[in-house]
Amino acid sequence: MNQNRTLIQLALDTVDLPGARALLDTVRDLIDIVEIGTPLIIREGLRAVTEIDRAYPELVVLADLKIMDAGEYEAALAFDAGADIVTTLAVAYDATIRGAVCAAKSFDTKVMADLMAVNMIVDRVETLEAMGVDFVCVHTATDTLGEGHDGTAGLRSLRTKPRRAGVAVAGGLTPDGLTALTPHRPDIVIVGSYITRHSSPVEATRTIRTRLEEAGL
Amino acid sequence: MNQNRTLIQLALDTVDLPGARALLDTVRDLIDIVEIGTPLIIREGLRAVTEIDRAYPELVVLADLKIMDAGEYEAALAFDAGADIVTTLAVAYDATIRGAVCAAKSFDTKVMADLMAVNMIVDRVETLEAMGVDFVCVHTATDTLGEGHDGTAGLRSLRTKPRRAGVAVAGGLTPDGLTALTPHRPDIVIVGSYITRHSSPVEATRTIRTRLEEAGL
Repeated sequence: MNQNRTLIQLALDTVDLPGARALLDTVRDLIDIVEIGTPLIIREGLRAVTEIDRAYPELVVLADLKIMDAGEYEAALAFDAGADIVTTLAVAYDATIRGAVCAAKSFDTKVMADLMAVNMIVDRVETLEAMGVDFVCVHTATDTLGEGHDGTAGLRSLRTKPRRAGVAVAGGLTPDGLTALTPHRPDIVIVGSYITRHSSPVEATRTIRTRLEEAGL
Repeated sequence: MNQNRTLIQLALDTVDLPGARALLDTVRDLIDIVEIGTPLIIREGLRAVTEIDRAYPELVVLADLKIMDAGEYEAALAFDAGADIVTTLAVAYDATIRGAVCAAKSFDTKVMADLMAVNMIVDRVETLEAMGVDFVCVHTATDTLGEGHDGTAGLRSLRTKPRRAGVAVAGGLTPDGLTALTPHRPDIVIVGSYITRHSSPVEATRTIRTRLEEAGL
């Protein structure tokens, strides 16, 4: 996934599997990564990953497991089901994250660490990179949207771009919100409800893409 | 769940759903709570909760979601599927935990907060109780077993028993390990692989029950 432009990751959270398929049929050409969101995995299990991986072979599939323990075991379950990227929580113990990275190495896949609820974010990112994490995700929790948390503050808190890991940004992103992110040049922008709840998901995704291009991302 | 004796929670993690059913058929009379473990939910989705809830109506069913975001939404998914107790991570934002508690109130069910990776454990437990969490779980991560973490240290770190919330203890527990927990009088002991990987799960569960009784728990 070496690329110059910012990738669009579509997060499928509150949809069911048929709903996810119907949506992907319309936007598959406009996105880069499809995220099987935590609630969708809870509802359907990893068959959601397998089904979407098979139906959309051109898309990178991310399983948002938010792994907190049993890192190698849980990551391997998801990779075995067809995931290209698995998420761990950055607040998990180092041993857990190392386990997930170990699984990724044997499957030739990737690990994204979700920085939600991390204190000392700069130090943690340094440790995560040293452990071989491929991406860090600056993630404004759904439950804290509107409490003054936003992606820009999260990206600013990184201070400088990590040396090796790619940076993803997530949480309530809309086209207007993207503009503020521009100076930080995230590698991946994760968009969920703005697309999934839009009357025209295709139009919504095109707007995101256009805004990114206008921003030179 | 007012009780005098310590309850046994059987954690079903690395088994599949048929394996879980076969195991429960043999030990259902010896346990109090059946935990649909995180990896089992990842593999099967919430249908594992529904199937086990229907097949073993006498058991309390705990869904180990380890919720980190979308607290009300994810907890409601699990309660709707038949869970009596749902876990959140104690490191989640307060808004997330409050959301899960809100869902539990409307379903007349319970929330357990998993203290894994929490710093300042005494303060956090106080906040969790104030938010209406029913149980706190002192949990030694699978990935840190053997690093000197154990349930006794976790229980000691609570200093005193919470005033309202029940206390569960989890992570690599064996009959010998139970003995050390005795003075702390946990409300729930969570046992997984010692039972699930034993050549005779019935015998293993009976041993746990006997040790608890011998300890006056």
